[in-house]
Amino acid sequence: MDIEKIKEYFKNDRYAALTGIEVIEASKGYCKTKMKIEEKHLNAANVVQGGALFTLADYTFGLASNTYGQLALAINGNITFLKGKSEGTLYATAHEEADPKRIGAYHVEITDENNEVIACFNGLAYRKNQQIDL
Amino acid sequence: MDIEKIKEYFKNDRYAALTGIEVIEASKGYCKTKMKIEEKHLNAANVVQGGALFTLADYTFGLASNTYGQLALAINGNITFLKGKSEGTLYATAHEEADPKRIGAYHVEITDENNEVIACFNGLAYRKNQQIDL
Amino acid sequence: MDIEKIKEYFKNDRYAALTGIEVIEASKGYCKTKMKIEEKHLNAANVVQGGALFTLADYTFGLASNTYGQLALAINGNITFLKGKSEGTLYATAHEEADPKRIGAYHVEITDENNEVIACFNGLAYRKNQQIDL
Amino acid sequence: MDIEKIKEYFKNDRYAALTGIEVIEASKGYCKTKMKIEEKHLNAANVVQGGALFTLADYTFGLASNTYGQLALAINGNITFLKGKSEGTLYATAHEEADPKRIGAYHVEITDENNEVIACFNGLAYRKNQQIDL
Repeated sequence: MDIEKIKEYFKNDRYAALTGIEVIEASKGYCKTKMKIEEKHLNAANVVQGGALFTLADYTFGLASNTYGQLALAINGNITFLKGKSEGTLYATAHEEADPKRIGAYHVEITDENNEVIACFNGLAYRKNQQIDL
Repeated sequence: MDIEKIKEYFKNDRYAALTGIEVIEASKGYCKTKMKIEEKHLNAANVVQGGALFTLADYTFGLASNTYGQLALAINGNITFLKGKSEGTLYATAHEEADPKRIGAYHVEITDENNEVIACFNGLAYRKNQQIDL
Repeated sequence: MDIEKIKEYFKNDRYAALTGIEVIEASKGYCKTKMKIEEKHLNAANVVQGGALFTLADYTFGLASNTYGQLALAINGNITFLKGKSEGTLYATAHEEADPKRIGAYHVEITDENNEVIACFNGLAYRKNQQIDL
Repeated sequence: MDIEKIKEYFKNDRYAALTGIEVIEASKGYCKTKMKIEEKHLNAANVVQGGALFTLADYTFGLASNTYGQLALAINGNITFLKGKSEGTLYATAHEEADPKRIGAYHVEITDENNEVIACFNGLAYRKNQQIDL
Protein backbone atom coordinates (compact mmCIF):
# COMPACT_ATOMS: atom_id res chain seq x y z
CA MET A 1 0.00 0.00 0.00
CA ASP A 2 1.49 3.31 -0.91
CA ILE A 3 1.41 6.44 1.19
CA GLU A 4 -0.20 8.51 -1.57
CA LYS A 5 -3.32 6.35 -1.20
CA ILE A 6 -3.33 6.82 2.56
CA LYS A 7 -3.02 10.60 2.14
CA GLU A 8 -5.91 10.39 -0.34
CA TYR A 9 -7.97 8.44 2.19
CA PHE A 10 -7.31 11.04 4.88
CA LYS A 11 -8.59 13.78 2.57
CA ASN A 12 -12.04 12.44 3.38
CA ASP A 13 -11.69 13.78 6.94
CA ARG A 14 -14.31 16.53 6.87
CA TYR A 15 -13.45 18.10 10.23
CA ALA A 16 -9.80 18.46 9.20
CA ALA A 17 -10.99 20.04 5.94
CA LEU A 18 -13.27 22.41 7.86
CA THR A 19 -10.28 23.32 10.02
CA GLY A 20 -8.07 23.89 6.99
CA ILE A 21 -5.28 21.38 7.55
CA GLU A 22 -2.98 20.56 4.66
CA VAL A 23 -0.56 17.62 4.46
CA ILE A 24 3.00 18.62 3.52
CA GLU A 25 4.68 15.23 3.62
CA ALA A 26 4.33 11.72 5.00
CA SER A 27 6.44 8.58 5.16
CA LYS A 28 6.45 5.44 7.34
CA GLY A 29 5.72 6.57 10.87
CA TYR A 30 6.04 10.24 10.03
CA CYS A 31 3.84 13.12 8.90
CA LYS A 32 4.12 16.88 8.58
CA THR A 33 1.14 19.20 8.09
CA LYS A 34 0.35 22.90 8.16
CA MET A 35 -2.53 25.20 9.02
CA LYS A 36 -2.75 28.88 8.14
CA ILE A 37 -4.32 30.73 11.08
CA GLU A 38 -7.63 32.33 10.17
CA GLU A 39 -10.35 34.19 12.05
CA LYS A 40 -12.35 30.94 12.36
CA HIS A 41 -9.65 29.32 14.52
CA LEU A 42 -9.73 31.96 17.27
CA ASN A 43 -11.22 31.64 20.73
CA ALA A 44 -12.78 34.36 22.88
CA ALA A 45 -9.28 35.56 23.89
CA ASN A 46 -8.35 35.94 20.20
CA VAL A 47 -5.73 33.19 20.09
CA VAL A 48 -6.00 29.88 18.25
CA GLN A 49 -8.43 27.67 20.16
CA GLY A 50 -7.02 24.62 21.92
CA GLY A 51 -9.37 22.41 19.91
CA ALA A 52 -7.94 23.69 16.63
CA LEU A 53 -4.39 22.95 17.84
CA PHE A 54 -5.49 19.51 19.01
CA THR A 55 -7.20 18.80 15.67
CA LEU A 56 -4.01 19.74 13.82
CA ALA A 57 -1.87 17.50 16.06
CA ASP A 58 -4.34 14.62 16.14
CA TYR A 59 -4.76 14.55 12.37
CA THR A 60 -0.98 14.57 11.88
CA PHE A 61 -0.55 11.76 14.40
CA GLY A 62 -3.47 9.85 12.85
CA LEU A 63 -1.94 9.95 9.41
CA ALA A 64 1.53 9.02 10.70
CA SER A 65 0.16 6.07 12.68
CA ASN A 66 -1.63 4.71 9.61
CA THR A 67 1.29 4.90 7.19
CA TYR A 68 1.96 1.17 7.55
CA GLY A 69 -1.40 0.39 5.95
CA GLN A 70 -2.64 -1.40 9.09
CA LEU A 71 -5.68 0.34 10.57
CA ALA A 72 -4.67 2.33 13.69
CA LEU A 73 -7.34 3.88 15.90
CA ALA A 74 -6.55 6.80 18.20
CA ILE A 75 -7.20 5.92 21.82
CA ASN A 76 -5.68 8.89 23.64
CA GLY A 77 -4.31 12.34 22.94
CA ASN A 78 -2.51 14.58 25.42
CA ILE A 79 -1.69 18.17 24.49
CA THR A 80 0.18 20.93 26.30
CA PHE A 81 -0.36 24.54 25.24
CA LEU A 82 2.85 26.54 25.45
CA LYS A 83 2.19 29.79 23.64
CA GLY A 84 -0.85 31.63 22.28
CA LYS A 85 -0.85 32.58 18.58
CA SER A 86 -3.21 34.88 16.69
CA GLU A 87 -1.81 34.88 13.18
CA GLY A 88 0.69 33.22 10.86
CA THR A 89 1.09 29.58 9.91
CA LEU A 90 1.40 26.56 12.18
CA TYR A 91 3.30 23.37 11.35
CA ALA A 92 2.80 19.98 13.02
CA THR A 93 5.36 17.19 12.85
CA ALA A 94 4.64 13.65 14.11
CA HIS A 95 7.27 11.04 14.96
CA GLU A 96 7.03 7.58 16.48
CA GLU A 97 8.28 7.17 20.03
CA ALA A 98 9.22 3.54 19.34
CA ASP A 99 8.94 0.87 16.66
CA PRO A 100 5.34 0.12 15.70
CA LYS A 101 3.58 -2.50 17.83
CA ARG A 102 0.02 -3.23 18.84
CA ILE A 103 0.01 0.06 20.74
CA GLY A 104 1.75 2.89 18.91
CA ALA A 105 3.01 6.04 20.64
CA TYR A 106 3.58 9.25 18.69
CA HIS A 107 4.95 12.67 19.61
CA VAL A 108 3.80 15.76 17.74
CA GLU A 109 5.31 19.21 17.93
CA ILE A 110 3.41 22.26 16.72
CA THR A 111 5.66 25.15 15.75
CA ASP A 112 5.16 28.51 14.10
CA GLU A 113 7.03 30.02 11.13
CA ASN A 114 9.90 31.01 13.48
CA ASN A 115 10.20 27.44 14.70
CA GLU A 116 8.95 28.39 18.15
CA VAL A 117 7.07 25.55 19.89
CA ILE A 118 3.38 26.45 20.32
CA ALA A 119 2.13 23.11 21.64
CA CYS A 120 3.31 19.55 22.12
CA PHE A 121 1.14 16.46 21.84
CA ASN A 122 1.34 12.74 22.51
CA GLY A 123 -0.94 10.27 20.82
CA LEU A 124 -1.63 6.59 21.41
CA ALA A 125 -3.04 4.35 18.72
CA TYR A 126 -4.32 0.80 18.82
CA ARG A 127 -3.57 -1.26 15.72
CA LYS A 128 -6.31 -3.59 14.57
CA ASN A 129 -5.77 -6.81 12.62
CA GLN A 130 -7.14 -5.08 9.57
CA GLN A 131 -5.86 -3.17 6.58
CA ILE A 132 -7.09 0.37 5.93
CA ASP A 133 -10.17 0.19 3.75
CA LEU A 134 -9.27 2.31 0.71
CA MET B 1 -19.32 38.92 37.92
CA ASP B 2 -22.25 36.85 36.83
CA ILE B 3 -22.09 33.65 34.84
CA GLU B 4 -24.39 34.99 32.11
CA LYS B 5 -21.67 37.49 31.20
CA ILE B 6 -19.05 34.77 31.09
CA LYS B 7 -21.27 32.64 28.83
CA GLU B 8 -21.71 35.73 26.66
CA TYR B 9 -17.93 36.21 26.51
CA PHE B 10 -17.42 32.59 25.46
CA LYS B 11 -19.85 33.07 22.56
CA ASN B 12 -17.02 34.94 20.91
CA ASP B 13 -15.12 31.65 20.49
CA ARG B 14 -15.23 31.30 16.71
CA TYR B 15 -13.83 27.77 16.52
CA ALA B 16 -16.47 26.52 18.97
CA ALA B 17 -19.12 28.28 16.84
CA LEU B 18 -17.72 26.67 13.68
CA THR B 19 -17.91 23.32 15.46
CA GLY B 20 -21.50 23.94 16.56
CA ILE B 21 -21.18 23.76 20.35
CA GLU B 22 -24.04 25.06 22.46
CA VAL B 23 -23.95 25.82 26.20
CA ILE B 24 -26.78 24.16 28.17
CA GLU B 25 -25.90 25.32 31.67
CA ALA B 26 -23.06 26.66 33.78
CA SER B 27 -22.46 27.43 37.43
CA LYS B 28 -19.36 27.88 39.64
CA GLY B 29 -16.88 25.22 38.54
CA TYR B 30 -19.39 23.44 36.33
CA CYS B 31 -20.55 23.51 32.71
CA LYS B 32 -22.69 21.35 30.43
CA THR B 33 -22.74 21.68 26.64
CA LYS B 34 -24.04 19.82 23.61
CA MET B 35 -23.14 19.24 19.98
CA LYS B 36 -25.42 17.74 17.36
CA ILE B 37 -23.35 15.46 15.14
CA GLU B 38 -23.25 16.64 11.54
CA GLU B 39 -21.43 15.58 8.37
CA LYS B 40 -18.76 18.24 9.03
CA HIS B 41 -17.62 16.52 12.24
CA LEU B 42 -16.76 13.19 10.61
CA ASN B 43 -13.31 11.81 9.91
CA ALA B 44 -12.23 9.51 7.07
CA ALA B 45 -13.66 6.51 8.97
CA ASN B 46 -17.05 8.28 9.20
CA VAL B 47 -17.07 8.74 12.97
CA VAL B 48 -16.77 12.04 14.85
CA GLN B 49 -13.17 13.22 14.57
CA GLY B 50 -11.09 13.23 17.74
CA GLY B 51 -10.47 16.93 17.32
CA ALA B 52 -14.20 17.68 17.35
CA LEU B 53 -14.59 15.67 20.58
CA PHE B 54 -11.60 17.45 22.08
CA THR B 55 -12.98 20.86 21.07
CA LEU B 56 -16.29 20.02 22.74
CA ALA B 57 -14.56 18.88 25.95
CA ASP B 58 -12.01 21.69 25.99
CA TYR B 59 -14.62 24.41 25.51
CA THR B 60 -16.75 22.96 28.31
CA PHE B 61 -13.74 22.76 30.63
CA GLY B 62 -12.65 26.27 29.59
CA LEU B 63 -16.00 27.75 30.48
CA ALA B 64 -16.21 25.84 33.79
CA SER B 65 -12.71 26.94 34.80
CA ASN B 66 -13.56 30.59 34.16
CA THR B 67 -16.83 30.71 36.11
CA TYR B 68 -15.11 32.36 39.08
CA GLY B 69 -14.39 35.45 36.98
CA GLN B 70 -10.62 35.03 37.38
CA LEU B 71 -8.90 34.43 34.04
CA ALA B 72 -7.97 30.75 33.68
CA LEU B 73 -5.79 29.61 30.77
CA ALA B 74 -5.78 26.00 29.59
CA ILE B 75 -2.35 24.45 29.87
CA ASN B 76 -3.06 20.79 29.18
CA GLY B 77 -5.84 18.57 27.90
CA ASN B 78 -5.86 14.77 27.93
CA ILE B 79 -8.61 12.87 26.13
CA THR B 80 -9.41 9.17 25.83
CA PHE B 81 -11.63 7.99 23.00
CA LEU B 82 -13.90 5.16 24.11
CA LYS B 83 -16.48 4.73 21.37
CA GLY B 84 -16.96 5.93 17.79
CA LYS B 85 -20.18 7.81 16.97
CA SER B 86 -21.58 8.79 13.56
CA GLU B 87 -24.87 10.44 14.42
CA GLY B 88 -26.99 11.77 17.26
CA THR B 89 -26.19 14.37 19.90
CA LEU B 90 -23.23 14.53 22.25
CA TYR B 91 -23.23 16.08 25.71
CA ALA B 92 -20.18 17.22 27.66
CA THR B 93 -20.18 17.80 31.41
CA ALA B 94 -17.26 19.40 33.26
CA HIS B 95 -16.62 19.16 37.01
CA GLU B 96 -13.76 20.33 39.19
CA GLU B 97 -11.47 17.67 40.62
CA ALA B 98 -10.74 19.83 43.66
CA ASP B 99 -11.39 23.29 45.05
CA PRO B 100 -10.08 26.06 42.80
CA LYS B 101 -6.43 27.02 43.30
CA ARG B 102 -3.67 28.47 41.15
CA ILE B 103 -3.77 25.28 39.08
CA GLY B 104 -7.28 23.97 38.44
CA ALA B 105 -8.04 20.38 37.42
CA TYR B 106 -11.26 19.50 35.62
CA HIS B 107 -12.80 16.23 34.46
CA VAL B 108 -15.12 16.17 31.45
CA GLU B 109 -17.29 13.29 30.35
CA ILE B 110 -18.74 13.16 26.83
CA THR B 111 -21.86 11.02 26.57
CA ASP B 112 -24.44 10.35 23.90
CA GLU B 113 -28.24 10.54 24.15
CA ASN B 114 -28.27 7.07 25.80
CA ASN B 115 -25.81 8.24 28.43
CA GLU B 116 -23.09 6.01 27.06
CA VAL B 117 -19.59 7.42 27.61
CA ILE B 118 -17.97 8.33 24.27
CA ALA B 119 -14.84 10.02 25.60
CA CYS B 120 -13.37 11.27 28.86
CA PHE B 121 -11.13 14.29 29.24
CA ASN B 122 -8.98 15.98 31.87
CA GLY B 123 -8.03 19.61 31.68
CA LEU B 124 -5.56 21.71 33.61
CA ALA B 125 -5.88 25.47 33.87
CA TYR B 126 -3.55 28.12 35.23
CA ARG B 127 -5.25 31.01 36.98
CA LYS B 128 -3.77 34.43 36.37
CA ASN B 129 -3.99 37.38 38.77
CA GLN B 130 -6.45 39.00 36.42
CA GLN B 131 -10.19 39.21 35.96
CA ILE B 132 -11.76 38.11 32.69
CA ASP B 133 -11.89 41.09 30.35
CA LEU B 134 -15.58 41.42 29.50
CA MET C 1 -12.35 -16.44 39.13
CA ASP C 2 -12.87 -14.76 42.45
CA ILE C 3 -11.51 -11.41 43.47
CA GLU C 4 -9.76 -12.79 46.55
CA LYS C 5 -7.46 -14.72 44.22
CA ILE C 6 -6.73 -11.61 42.19
CA LYS C 7 -5.93 -9.65 45.35
CA GLU C 8 -3.65 -12.55 46.36
CA TYR C 9 -1.92 -12.39 42.97
CA PHE C 10 -1.35 -8.65 43.32
CA LYS C 11 0.36 -9.21 46.70
CA ASN C 12 3.30 -10.42 44.65
CA ASP C 13 3.91 -6.85 43.44
CA ARG C 14 7.22 -6.14 45.18
CA TYR C 15 7.39 -2.43 44.36
CA ALA C 16 3.92 -1.87 45.83
CA ALA C 17 5.04 -3.81 48.93
CA LEU C 18 8.20 -1.69 49.17
CA THR C 19 5.99 1.40 48.93
CA GLY C 20 3.65 0.10 51.62
CA ILE C 21 0.34 -0.05 49.77
CA GLU C 22 -2.51 -2.00 51.32
CA VAL C 23 -5.72 -3.11 49.58
CA ILE C 24 -8.90 -2.15 51.45
CA GLU C 25 -11.51 -3.51 49.07
CA ALA C 26 -12.06 -4.58 45.49
CA SER C 27 -14.98 -5.61 43.31
CA LYS C 28 -15.64 -5.76 39.55
CA GLY C 29 -14.07 -2.65 38.05
CA TYR C 30 -13.37 -1.09 41.43
CA CYS C 31 -10.57 -0.97 43.99
CA LYS C 32 -9.72 1.04 47.10
CA THR C 33 -6.29 1.09 48.72
CA LYS C 34 -4.40 3.02 51.37
CA MET C 35 -0.83 4.09 52.15
CA LYS C 36 0.35 5.48 55.46
CA ILE C 37 2.83 8.28 54.76
CA GLU C 38 6.31 7.49 56.06
CA GLU C 39 9.73 9.15 55.87
CA LYS C 40 10.64 6.90 52.93
CA HIS C 41 7.93 8.45 50.72
CA LEU C 42 9.24 12.01 50.96
CA ASN C 43 11.06 13.99 48.29
CA ALA C 44 13.66 16.72 48.75
CA ALA C 45 10.91 19.23 49.55
CA ASN C 46 9.60 16.94 52.32
CA VAL C 47 6.28 16.10 50.70
CA VAL C 48 5.22 12.71 49.32
CA GLN C 49 7.12 12.14 46.07
CA GLY C 50 5.11 12.15 42.85
CA GLY C 51 6.33 8.64 42.10
CA ALA C 52 4.89 7.34 45.37
CA LEU C 53 1.52 8.91 44.57
CA PHE C 54 1.67 7.49 41.05
CA THR C 55 2.55 4.03 42.38
CA LEU C 56 -0.42 4.15 44.73
CA ALA C 57 -2.79 5.22 41.93
CA ASP C 58 -1.34 2.87 39.33
CA TYR C 59 -1.54 -0.17 41.61
CA THR C 60 -5.16 0.64 42.50
CA PHE C 61 -6.05 1.08 38.82
CA GLY C 62 -4.12 -2.10 37.93
CA LEU C 63 -6.04 -4.18 40.42
CA ALA C 64 -9.41 -2.67 39.40
CA SER C 65 -8.73 -3.29 35.70
CA ASN C 66 -7.91 -6.95 36.38
CA THR C 67 -10.96 -7.79 38.48
CA TYR C 68 -12.68 -9.44 35.51
CA GLY C 69 -10.00 -12.13 35.44
CA GLN C 70 -8.92 -11.15 31.91
CA LEU C 71 -5.32 -9.97 31.84
CA ALA C 72 -5.19 -6.16 31.52
CA LEU C 73 -1.87 -4.41 30.91
CA ALA C 74 -1.37 -0.75 31.78
CA ILE C 75 -0.49 1.30 28.71
CA ASN C 76 -0.74 4.84 30.02
CA GLY C 77 -1.06 6.71 33.30
CA ASN C 78 -1.69 10.44 33.69
CA ILE C 79 -1.49 12.06 37.12
CA THR C 80 -2.12 15.59 38.35
CA PHE C 81 -0.67 16.69 41.66
CA LEU C 82 -3.04 18.99 43.52
CA LYS C 83 -1.68 19.28 47.05
CA GLY C 84 1.53 18.35 48.86
CA LYS C 85 1.26 16.10 51.93
CA SER C 86 3.92 15.27 54.51
CA GLU C 87 2.08 13.03 56.95
CA GLY C 88 -1.12 11.12 57.53
CA THR C 89 -2.77 8.41 55.44
CA LEU C 90 -3.66 8.50 51.75
CA TYR C 91 -6.54 6.61 50.14
CA ALA C 92 -6.88 5.78 46.44
CA THR C 93 -10.16 4.82 44.80
CA ALA C 94 -10.39 3.53 41.22
CA HIS C 95 -13.53 3.49 39.09
CA GLU C 96 -14.16 2.58 35.46
CA GLU C 97 -14.93 5.42 33.08
CA ALA C 98 -17.02 3.10 30.91
CA ASP C 99 -17.99 -0.55 30.55
CA PRO C 100 -14.98 -2.81 30.04
CA LYS C 101 -13.82 -3.24 26.46
CA ARG C 102 -10.52 -3.99 24.73
CA ILE C 103 -9.24 -0.66 26.01
CA GLY C 104 -10.27 0.10 29.58
CA ALA C 105 -10.22 3.62 31.06
CA TYR C 106 -10.06 4.16 34.81
CA HIS C 107 -10.16 7.24 37.03
CA VAL C 108 -8.40 7.24 40.39
CA GLU C 109 -8.73 9.83 43.11
CA ILE C 110 -6.19 10.08 45.90
CA THR C 111 -7.55 11.70 49.04
CA ASP C 112 -6.30 12.23 52.57
CA GLU C 113 -8.04 11.41 55.88
CA ASN C 114 -10.08 14.65 55.57
CA ASN C 115 -11.28 13.62 52.10
CA GLU C 116 -9.29 16.39 50.45
CA VAL C 117 -8.15 15.51 46.93
CA ILE C 118 -4.33 15.21 46.80
CA ALA C 119 -4.00 13.91 43.24
CA CYS C 120 -6.13 12.58 40.41
CA PHE C 121 -5.08 9.94 37.92
CA ASN C 122 -6.31 8.36 34.71
CA GLY C 123 -5.18 4.97 33.57
CA LEU C 124 -5.59 3.10 30.31
CA ALA C 125 -5.35 -0.68 30.10
CA TYR C 126 -5.23 -3.04 27.16
CA ARG C 127 -7.04 -6.34 27.67
CA LYS C 128 -5.35 -9.40 26.23
CA ASN C 129 -7.13 -12.55 25.12
CA GLN C 130 -5.76 -14.30 28.15
CA GLN C 131 -6.81 -15.06 31.70
CA ILE C 132 -4.65 -13.90 34.60
CA ASP C 133 -2.14 -16.60 35.40
CA LEU C 134 -2.81 -17.41 39.07
CA MET D 1 23.45 28.75 41.69
CA ASP D 2 25.41 25.80 40.38
CA ILE D 3 23.99 22.51 39.25
CA GLU D 4 26.14 20.49 41.66
CA LYS D 5 24.23 22.09 44.53
CA ILE D 6 20.90 21.24 42.91
CA LYS D 7 22.00 17.62 42.43
CA GLU D 8 23.05 17.60 46.08
CA TYR D 9 19.62 18.94 47.10
CA PHE D 10 17.87 16.22 45.09
CA LYS D 11 19.87 13.55 46.94
CA ASN D 12 17.55 14.23 49.83
CA ASP D 13 14.69 12.62 47.88
CA ARG D 14 14.11 9.51 49.98
CA TYR D 15 11.69 7.77 47.64
CA ALA D 16 14.14 8.10 44.75
CA ALA D 17 16.85 6.68 47.04
CA LEU D 18 14.57 3.79 48.04
CA THR D 19 13.98 3.15 44.34
CA GLY D 20 17.70 3.25 43.58
CA ILE D 21 17.91 6.11 41.09
CA GLU D 22 21.33 7.57 40.30
CA VAL D 23 22.02 10.88 38.52
CA ILE D 24 24.46 10.55 35.60
CA GLU D 25 24.51 14.14 34.39
CA ALA D 26 22.58 17.39 34.49
CA SER D 27 22.79 20.78 32.84
CA LYS D 28 20.35 23.66 32.23
CA GLY D 29 17.02 22.07 31.27
CA TYR D 30 18.50 18.60 30.97
CA CYS D 31 19.08 15.54 33.15
CA LYS D 32 20.08 11.91 32.64
CA THR D 33 19.69 9.22 35.29
CA LYS D 34 19.87 5.45 35.59
CA MET D 35 18.32 2.64 37.60
CA LYS D 36 19.60 -0.92 37.78
CA ILE D 37 16.61 -3.27 37.77
CA GLU D 38 16.34 -5.28 40.98
CA GLU D 39 13.84 -7.74 42.43
CA LYS D 40 12.25 -4.90 44.45
CA HIS D 41 11.13 -3.10 41.26
CA LEU D 42 9.03 -5.97 39.90
CA ASN D 43 5.27 -6.24 39.82
CA ALA D 44 3.13 -9.38 40.04
CA ALA D 45 3.82 -10.11 36.36
CA ASN D 46 7.59 -9.96 37.04
CA VAL D 47 8.31 -6.85 34.99
CA VAL D 48 9.34 -3.44 36.35
CA GLN D 49 6.29 -1.85 37.95
CA GLY D 50 4.79 1.20 36.26
CA GLY D 51 5.29 3.20 39.44
CA ALA D 52 9.04 2.49 39.42
CA LEU D 53 9.26 3.67 35.79
CA PHE D 54 7.22 6.75 36.63
CA THR D 55 9.42 7.51 39.65
CA LEU D 56 12.52 7.29 37.47
CA ALA D 57 11.01 9.60 34.82
CA ASP D 58 9.49 12.03 37.30
CA TYR D 59 12.71 12.41 39.28
CA THR D 60 14.69 13.06 36.08
CA PHE D 61 12.14 15.63 34.91
CA GLY D 62 12.05 17.19 38.39
CA LEU D 63 15.78 17.70 38.45
CA ALA D 64 15.87 19.02 34.87
CA SER D 65 13.08 21.51 35.57
CA ASN D 66 14.91 22.86 38.64
CA THR D 67 18.30 23.40 37.01
CA TYR D 68 17.64 27.12 36.62
CA GLY D 69 17.61 27.54 40.39
CA GLN D 70 14.01 28.76 40.39
CA LEU D 71 11.71 26.41 42.31
CA ALA D 72 9.64 24.31 39.89
CA LEU D 73 6.82 22.14 41.20
CA ALA D 74 5.52 19.15 39.22
CA ILE D 75 1.86 19.54 38.37
CA ASN D 76 1.29 16.68 35.93
CA GLY D 77 3.03 13.58 34.64
CA ASN D 78 1.89 11.42 31.74
CA ILE D 79 3.61 8.11 31.04
CA THR D 80 3.17 5.51 28.30
CA PHE D 81 4.48 2.00 28.86
CA LEU D 82 5.91 0.54 25.67
CA LYS D 83 7.78 -2.60 26.69
CA GLY D 84 8.07 -4.76 29.84
CA LYS D 85 11.55 -5.30 31.28
CA SER D 86 12.66 -7.75 33.98
CA GLU D 87 16.39 -7.16 34.20
CA GLY D 88 19.21 -4.91 33.09
CA THR D 89 19.66 -1.17 33.51
CA LEU D 90 17.27 1.62 32.57
CA TYR D 91 18.28 5.14 31.56
CA ALA D 92 16.04 8.21 31.64
CA THR D 93 16.78 11.39 29.70
CA ALA D 94 14.80 14.61 30.18
CA HIS D 95 14.70 17.51 27.72
CA GLU D 96 12.69 20.72 27.63
CA GLU D 97 9.93 20.98 25.04
CA ALA D 98 10.37 24.75 24.86
CA ASP D 99 12.24 27.59 26.50
CA PRO D 100 11.53 27.87 30.23
CA LYS D 101 8.48 29.93 31.19
CA ARG D 102 6.01 29.99 34.05
CA ILE D 103 4.81 26.56 32.93
CA GLY D 104 7.61 24.24 31.84
CA ALA D 105 7.07 21.16 29.66
CA TYR D 106 9.55 18.29 29.63
CA HIS D 107 9.82 15.07 27.66
CA VAL D 108 11.53 12.04 29.19
CA GLU D 109 12.52 8.87 27.39
CA ILE D 110 13.32 5.70 29.30
CA THR D 111 15.56 3.31 27.37
CA ASP D 112 17.38 0.10 28.18
CA GLU D 113 21.05 -0.76 27.59
CA ASN D 114 20.26 -1.52 23.92
CA ASN D 115 18.70 1.90 23.49
CA GLU D 116 15.24 0.41 23.07
CA VAL D 117 12.47 2.73 24.32
CA ILE D 118 10.73 1.22 27.37
CA ALA D 119 8.51 4.16 28.28
CA CYS D 120 7.99 7.80 27.38
CA PHE D 121 6.87 10.51 29.77
CA ASN D 122 5.77 14.14 29.69
CA GLY D 123 5.96 16.36 32.70
CA LEU D 124 4.59 19.81 33.44
CA ALA D 125 6.08 22.06 36.08
CA TYR D 126 4.91 25.33 37.57
CA ARG D 127 7.67 27.79 38.40
CA LYS D 128 7.23 29.76 41.59
CA ASN D 129 8.70 33.21 42.25
CA GLN D 130 11.16 31.61 44.62
CA GLN D 131 14.68 30.23 44.52
CA ILE D 132 15.32 26.63 45.53
CA ASP D 133 16.01 26.52 49.25
CA LEU D 134 19.46 24.91 49.49
